[in-house]
Amino acid sequence: VENRDHALDVARHVRDAGARMLRGGAFKPRTSPYDFQGLGVRGLEYLAEAKRATGLPVVSEVMSPEQIEQAEPFVDVFQIGARNMFNYELLKEVGRTRRPVLLKRGFSATIQEFLSAAEYILLEGNLQVILCERGIRTFETHTRNTLDLSAVAALKALTPLPVIVDPSHGTGRAELIRPLSRAAIACGADGLLIEVHESPCEALSDGDQAITSAALREIVSDVHKIHLALGGPLSPALAQTGEPVSVS
Amino acid sequence: VENRDHALDVARHVRDAGARMLRGGAFKPRTSPYDFQGLGVRGLEYLAEAKRATGLPVVSEVMSPEQIEQAEPFVDVFQIGARNMFNYELLKEVGRTRRPVLLKRGFSATIQEFLSAAEYILLEGNLQVILCERGIRTFETHTRNTLDLSAVAALKALTPLPVIVDPSHGTGRAELIRPLSRAAIACGADGLLIEVHESPCEALSDGDQAITSAALREIVSDVHKIHLALGGPLSPALAQTGEPVSVS
Amino acid sequence: VENRDHALDVARHVRDAGARMLRGGAFKPRTSPYDFQGLGVRGLEYLAEAKRATGLPVVSEVMSPEQIEQAEPFVDVFQIGARNMFNYELLKEVGRTRRPVLLKRGFSATIQEFLSAAEYILLEGNLQVILCERGIRTFETHTRNTLDLSAVAALKALTPLPVIVDPSHGTGRAELIRPLSRAAIACGADGLLIEVHESPCEALSDGDQAITSAALREIVSDVHKIHLALGGPLSPALAQTGEPVSVS
Amino acid sequence: VENRDHALDVARHVRDAGARMLRGGAFKPRTSPYDFQGLGVRGLEYLAEAKRATGLPVVSEVMSPEQIEQAEPFVDVFQIGARNMFNYELLKEVGRTRRPVLLKRGFSATIQEFLSAAEYILLEGNLQVILCERGIRTFETHTRNTLDLSAVAALKALTPLPVIVDPSHGTGRAELIRPLSRAAIACGADGLLIEVHESPCEALSDGDQAITSAALREIVSDVHKIHLALGGPLSPALAQTGEPVSVS
Repeated sequence: VENRDHALDVARHVRDAGARMLRGGAFKPRTSPYDFQGLGVRGLEYLAEAKRATGLPVVSEVMSPEQIEQAEPFVDVFQIGARNMFNYELLKEVGRTRRPVLLKRGFSATIQEFLSAAEYILLEGNLQVILCERGIRTFETHTRNTLDLSAVAALKALTPLPVIVDPSHGTGRAELIRPLSRAAIACGADGLLIEVHESPCEALSDGDQAITSAALREIVSDVHKIHLALGGPLSPALAQTGEPVSVS
Repeated sequence: VENRDHALDVARHVRDAGARMLRGGAFKPRTSPYDFQGLGVRGLEYLAEAKRATGLPVVSEVMSPEQIEQAEPFVDVFQIGARNMFNYELLKEVGRTRRPVLLKRGFSATIQEFLSAAEYILLEGNLQVILCERGIRTFETHTRNTLDLSAVAALKALTPLPVIVDPSHGTGRAELIRPLSRAAIACGADGLLIEVHESPCEALSDGDQAITSAALREIVSDVHKIHLALGGPLSPALAQTGEPVSVS
Repeated sequence: VENRDHALDVARHVRDAGARMLRGGAFKPRTSPYDFQGLGVRGLEYLAEAKRATGLPVVSEVMSPEQIEQAEPFVDVFQIGARNMFNYELLKEVGRTRRPVLLKRGFSATIQEFLSAAEYILLEGNLQVILCERGIRTFETHTRNTLDLSAVAALKALTPLPVIVDPSHGTGRAELIRPLSRAAIACGADGLLIEVHESPCEALSDGDQAITSAALREIVSDVHKIHLALGGPLSPALAQTGEPVSVS
Repeated sequence: VENRDHALDVARHVRDAGARMLRGGAFKPRTSPYDFQGLGVRGLEYLAEAKRATGLPVVSEVMSPEQIEQAEPFVDVFQIGARNMFNYELLKEVGRTRRPVLLKRGFSATIQEFLSAAEYILLEGNLQVILCERGIRTFETHTRNTLDLSAVAALKALTPLPVIVDPSHGTGRAELIRPLSRAAIACGADGLLIEVHESPCEALSDGDQAITSAALREIVSDVHKIHLALGGPLSPALAQTGEPVSVS
């Protein structure tokens, strides 16, 4: 979320393109303390407004107990980012809420550690956990991360939790998002998390990996074609909340 | 290739399941010098016999100029394995033949290094190079390697060479081969390289990652469904030789 | 910290072996929520008692604002573990205290990200940050992690902050701790963080990588010999607080 | 080796600085076929001349049976580079010679695979194998590779073969070569392999990681100090041929 108009604008575009949820960052974990850190509560208000305008449920990242409290009135799904997958105290905190949690895999978390992190949430009584594969760190530099689709298939075999894929962070390259979105769905992912920006070149962060809502529309169409060809998503849980094809 | 009857048997099964090529190892690069090293020329003869019986062209790995000479009368496509992707002298040697070369990505080769290795072959005048993504080394231990499907999409954008995927070595787990095969095709791979063994538990090597020809048949069916849904493979070159869905 | 007697016992042994600080885990971040999670405040009390008995300052890990508050009366140095290196909210919290912070490198944090994490603490006004290299994740499985001593030399060139090394987690193998301790000091590390347990086989966690205080004594002797041969540690800041050769 | 005068010049400088062997590349494995590929046999002649002028034994890389034959009259030690560590046919070929072999670890070879590669040489009857750690591939980009000194200590415990370290390729940064050389010797390495160039900025390849012979002299002095402080190298075999502190 960069400003109010932008948030509303993108929300309408992604809804029209077929998205079922809206992800927007109000609190942004940035590697450098000198980078844009998000709009905070004001960003949450813009997201809530976008939700009213479009009907799309809202996902947003939280990084501390205070942020959970601040975000609770505005968001439908809490996101735990890759940097905090090993932050067990935070996992327990969101486990004590009754909101669905979108848990992203850590930069170098094994599949087993990813499942154990989910368990920290589940053990607090919150059973609505959505796992999100977002790429792991390897020696390869052509892509920002190495999207690990084997992990998606492995997770689908190991847990009944829904598993979604973030090809935007996973590849870091706009031109790879469509083919990897197709691949993710074809190997069983229950949804996609995609960064959309109408003018990627002007984005305040992650512009290289954003696509337009027109491109999103084509991906949504691909997803439907693959579902028709191979059968739909396997997670009834997620089918209820819809695929979180979304936007930051 | 473990013995004559086995080679013929598997060849017939995979042809019936829809495979268009037969890969069999006569010279096998094994990490330990004490492990089964393949049947050598005898293995090549069995492969040639399997080719006569089924009509399937034969792919087999070579690791030295001597093996190229020995294999030339028997095989249709030379495979350069992951261990030899950086063996530039060998790349030049197969570049001087006029047989297609199936070049597997090194364990930790970058996409750029993979393309440069292909260039060593192309520069000798042999333009029939098929690139094969077979997984890279990462910290993850649940899978044998991390199959890098972003590399497939990236390569399709960077080069007109056909790109295939080996989900057997890429995942090292039989239960992940079908979903990753679907994903590979969905993100643009021109073919698959799959290990088939009718009794995986009794295989002399790589049994954990082999599937039966019945399972292969289902994958071939998936491939056709995805092609119908999303459009066929993009490489006319490979369309001529067929998808090397194969067997070792 | 496993119990009171054990804590006192180890503290006396490591002091006699030449340690200058005592690290003990009261709040333990464990991958699985079902594993031993540490003794909490009771563990802190045992550590404080061990400090009174030996005069050794105490280092202990904190994972949340609550734990910072609970630990403050008992500990001299807050440790931020590898799992929380990207937990920017926690970094800011310890940055607001006036206790030294021992910041461990994340499992797959780049040198640049490690420095940026330190900056989150420094920017809050707390300038007493000690960086700790503790191994990164790679494909190698013989060692638990790959200790990155190049990072130590690089950090010494990039920042005036003291840099210490944890060869216990870094290698995960008791027999490698002495040679890697020597190497760490030889390339410029300002101190070592070593797990000591008098009966490693009976440890509740990390027994494989613990050494006895007798072995620690030999390492302390090596450190002095290397300092004599090559010149002492470069960080005056750390020279004041002593080398945190320690124990969990 | 770039030209005759340069080879002679560097050889004299490194001998005076304390080197006991001279490594020079005549056949150079370059990632791109368009890069400088070495001077070939002419380079070997320059090396032989440098040997006559300085008395230093010569190490040079070979990449094929043909190159072994061509190099045999000129070189004292065959080097197998990281790219060819998995080239088992080449390993067997050098195993059939009676020259010492300097075997470099593959970019992503495990310690176990490294030892198995050595075994391919030993099994042919050539027992003079020197293992060389030269850095592995990881996500870290500050250094060219991640020098794995744990592997050095592990290898010293697993095999009686001498183990040396190449901090030039291992770090890829001139300023890190001295501290990592110290660390390598302190954790038990039997020798060092260091790139020297009197004008690093004008080097045809790898200039970023070369140091001058004056800097080499300081490292040789460090090595002696560490040996005095901690005891000398452990490998009698290598003590006979001297530490291959060398030059390309």
